[in-house]
Amino acid sequence: MAEQLRNRFVALKSHVNGEPTESDFDIKTESIAVAARSGEVIVKTLCVSVDPYQLNRMKANCSSQAAIGFAAAIPPGQAIDTYGVGRVVASGRAEFSKDELVIGLLSWGEYTVVEQGRLLNKLDPMGLPLHYHVGPLGFSGLAAYGGFFEVCNPKKGESVFVSTASGSVGSLVGQYAKLFGCRVVGSAGSQSKVDLLKQKLGFDDAFNYKDETDLKSALKRHFPDGIDIYFDNVGGEMLEAAIANMNTYGRVAVCGAISEYTGGGRKAALELLDVVYKRITVQGFLAADHLKCYPDFISSTAEYINAGKMEVLCSISHGVDSIPGAFVGLFRGDNIGKMVVKISDK
Amino acid sequence: MAEQLRNRFVALKSHVNGEPTESDFDIKTESIAVAARSGEVIVKTLCVSVDPYQLNRMKANCSSQAAIGFAAAIPPGQAIDTYGVGRVVASGRAEFSKDELVIGLLSWGEYTVVEQGRLLNKLDPMGLPLHYHVGPLGFSGLAAYGGFFEVCNPKKGESVFVSTASGSVGSLVGQYAKLFGCRVVGSAGSQSKVDLLKQKLGFDDAFNYKDETDLKSALKRHFPDGIDIYFDNVGGEMLEAAIANMNTYGRVAVCGAISEYTGGGRKAALELLDVVYKRITVQGFLAADHLKCYPDFISSTAEYINAGKMEVLCSISHGVDSIPGAFVGLFRGDNIGKMVVKISDK
Repeated sequence: MAEQLRNRFVALKSHVNGEPTESDFDIKTESIAVAARSGEVIVKTLCVSVDPYQLNRMKANCSSQAAIGFAAAIPPGQAIDTYGVGRVVASGRAEFSKDELVIGLLSWGEYTVVEQGRLLNKLDPMGLPLHYHVGPLGFSGLAAYGGFFEVCNPKKGESVFVSTASGSVGSLVGQYAKLFGCRVVGSAGSQSKVDLLKQKLGFDDAFNYKDETDLKSALKRHFPDGIDIYFDNVGGEMLEAAIANMNTYGRVAVCGAISEYTGGGRKAALELLDVVYKRITVQGFLAADHLKCYPDFISSTAEYINAGKMEVLCSISHGVDSIPGAFVGLFRGDNIGKMVVKISDK
Repeated sequence: MAEQLRNRFVALKSHVNGEPTESDFDIKTESIAVAARSGEVIVKTLCVSVDPYQLNRMKANCSSQAAIGFAAAIPPGQAIDTYGVGRVVASGRAEFSKDELVIGLLSWGEYTVVEQGRLLNKLDPMGLPLHYHVGPLGFSGLAAYGGFFEVCNPKKGESVFVSTASGSVGSLVGQYAKLFGCRVVGSAGSQSKVDLLKQKLGFDDAFNYKDETDLKSALKRHFPDGIDIYFDNVGGEMLEAAIANMNTYGRVAVCGAISEYTGGGRKAALELLDVVYKRITVQGFLAADHLKCYPDFISSTAEYINAGKMEVLCSISHGVDSIPGAFVGLFRGDNIGKMVVKISDK
């Protein structure tokens, strides 16, 4: 009989509707035989990504949304997939060997049996910390890069507004925009985050949205000549305020809408007269739409990081048991930059 | 002393906020000397366009919007500019001669003194009725053509939804889409309009939105396989319902938002999760943005009309005194197709 591994993993107790709490999750244990069948690869998790969008997959009505890849429903009781880095324990595929580093769709858990067809690639860490590969060099990075360069279609000298600017995607968008030659202002939810944006990430300016009673006025103050590009991670009132302050031919890339995920915030009610007269484009996108720019994204981002031109912000927690808390904290703004959970060092 | 013309024209009494009424307007009389100064052209109006967007220019807060061309504020007491066809009475410009037909920015009135720099071109009627040139061959047509082909980026076989489909722009969009090879469904506000769309304009289907209690369900019924393109003329709940029924990579061209102009309807609250996961693009535009496709637009539209492939829907009223009523009626859905006022026959 094959050697058995004990696998501890996070599962949903039941669908989450509204703000998530740690009690929505269970830590479950299962036994995995270390004998990969043909096509399967058994992977030990080293680190995994924790992302706000996963909440949408935990809702009871998730099936009403397009069931595409990362948007597929997460059924209660089962392992929760996410982007992660791991090491091959046993391989039933010729292209993967034991002990190799891999990156792909793993689980919020210690081990994953990766079936044929599920995203899995060899990982060249390029001398960078492994957790960078689920953050700035992973889908957060690709969302920032593809969203900014492909969806926002920036021109040098344009004015860019980024919400949740100290988050995993926003912190990168702002830095790409600065490196490209734009003027960049970010919003965040605390004074320390605002300081970080201005002092460490090189934003031209930043503000704490919780200190503002009128977001339209706040944006008017920070963009007296209007906003050309809004990289939206929050939706709701901030999107309305940005539309009101946009210039003619302004572009809004909708990457996420965290204020609307929990059902607590109200939906953005767009001023369509502005949309028409200012010829504004509002475009939703997913990182996976921009795989064609993946090679450019990886090479330029790794170069920026290695050259010290780009700061990587990560919040790291440790162990499977810390995953629910790390996830729940995303909706309270606990994290700075990319939230990553390290499961094992090797 | 130069001959004097008596000019009767429509003016705003005061700013309009909300639904317009005929009492918001005055008919004023002025005297114009038939002696064009250098750079001026005095034009006798033959017919003029009456459009919903003009209401936005009559609002007290209009100055807060981009003051570009057709969006400029209309001050109370002054003549109201609009697209129209006329005949030159006297010319202070070498390129225009007395009695020539012209088209450009005239007034809701009998005569206009067109200053240098204001839109004015010679008109070749191409054997078609003059009022066609302020409708299907004017800015309504260009909005339909540019909006559909440039903004919506259609592919043959796609499913297209058009609101206010029996209106000046919608009736043309639906016909362009059918001629291009799309499946087209339209919404309108009466059974007779619905019949017209299906029987005269060749729409695949149509429905009376006033008969529907749930617009989302109505669109689901008419688009069981989803909407690829929504040409939006109304905003509000219809836009929300369209977003809910859109396919991945769906496109929304926002041409107008008549339900929101009067302040009576509520603003569209977009479901951003749909926008993101379905990668929907919502884009506002103005006809004037698409002047580069003007030659294609004019030649293909004139050809379609002459060949009997395209129906022209017009509602015509007569005389300056009928203008306020024609305008007010737009917001009650009185018109079918393009609303034009004939001022003089020659």
